[in-house]
Amino acid sequence: MPELMSTDRAELDALLASTVVGHVGFVDDTGRARVLPTAVVRWGERIVIHGSTGSGWLRRLAEGAPACVTVTAVDGVVVARSAFESSLLYRSAVLFGQFTVLQGTEKLAALDALTDRLLPGRVAEVRRPTAKELAATLLLAMPLTEWSLRTSDGFAEDPDDDVAGPAWAGQVRLGPAPLSIVPAPGLRPGIPVPASVAAVAGLR
Amino acid sequence: MPELMSTDRAELDALLASTVVGHVGFVDDTGRARVLPTAVVRWGERIVIHGSTGSGWLRRLAEGAPACVTVTAVDGVVVARSAFESSLLYRSAVLFGQFTVLQGTEKLAALDALTDRLLPGRVAEVRRPTAKELAATLLLAMPLTEWSLRTSDGFAEDPDDDVAGPAWAGQVRLGPAPLSIVPAPGLRPGIPVPASVAAVAGLR
Repeated sequence: MPELMSTDRAELDALLASTVVGHVGFVDDTGRARVLPTAVVRWGERIVIHGSTGSGWLRRLAEGAPACVTVTAVDGVVVARSAFESSLLYRSAVLFGQFTVLQGTEKLAALDALTDRLLPGRVAEVRRPTAKELAATLLLAMPLTEWSLRTSDGFAEDPDDDVAGPAWAGQVRLGPAPLSIVPAPGLRPGIPVPASVAAVAGLR
Repeated sequence: MPELMSTDRAELDALLASTVVGHVGFVDDTGRARVLPTAVVRWGERIVIHGSTGSGWLRRLAEGAPACVTVTAVDGVVVARSAFESSLLYRSAVLFGQFTVLQGTEKLAALDALTDRLLPGRVAEVRRPTAKELAATLLLAMPLTEWSLRTSDGFAEDPDDDVAGPAWAGQVRLGPAPLSIVPAPGLRPGIPVPASVAAVAGLR
């Protein structure tokens, strides 16, 4: 099954545009690797993550701990004529680097990018963050400098004996997940579903 | 937004039953954390992963390198009345431990479990693995002993000022992704789509 390595930046951008969660790895105080999921959004030539200033692992990253951020989209299953040749269809990027803390206007702009990535256009629909909210939020950015991308696509390369046999082969491909919109129990009457919510797509 | 920690094994099992890919972290030769995606399947009281005996990172895990395996399902977005209170709906488990190499009948049974997790019932539809295929495959298992589970669900807890304002709040929930079945270009005529392929579900 063709598994391709790529250094095509457009493919990396496409992957980051179709996933919202990445897995961030770092070495903790005890010398062990830890892997935590968080929203990962491309912001120009960087990726950004965010969270509470009270988060120990974000503070560790903020101090410059080397990080590995892996972003993966599962696109389906390659069904071969044997179990051995069967595999997953996926795209995955592994990014290495160090995060730095964003401040001031950069922090605001990156936060807006995060919000609008999840809910396109949401920033224009809601009030601005307060000073207190900003102070409670840590915004970290890592440059897109050291990364690799791996894509598995295509069909199984079954040996001739298996191709001549009775087993089926092909792909099962996953389409975009359907969305359901649930108003909050305390929502005041008469507030319509906003455009940003109707525009959500590509969440993984 | 309620984020709950859980030690409920049934919740862990449910998460592992609804995801196929986990992110495996370990410390590499250079002392950096590396995070790689791979199919992660629960097999009784263990999780199993597999790959080629030629894979350097799997061999490192096989030698007993401490590992952190993180499994995450994104279930949607919590839309709050402000960007600050908005967040992701997700379930995530972080498992720590060391992998050991499975051999003999255990190896075969774990491989079958992996195959049937991706394509339910596929093992009964295809030929058995050959000795050569088995020799080329590394099967690793890690006990479910040290883990934690985090679940984010519910609605935003917006401050009263925001609740009284014009902004919408609720959830966008992701349903199961629709599947499309694509026969391989070289498939012999007359071979119907097997039951295992029709039964695929819950891939993430």
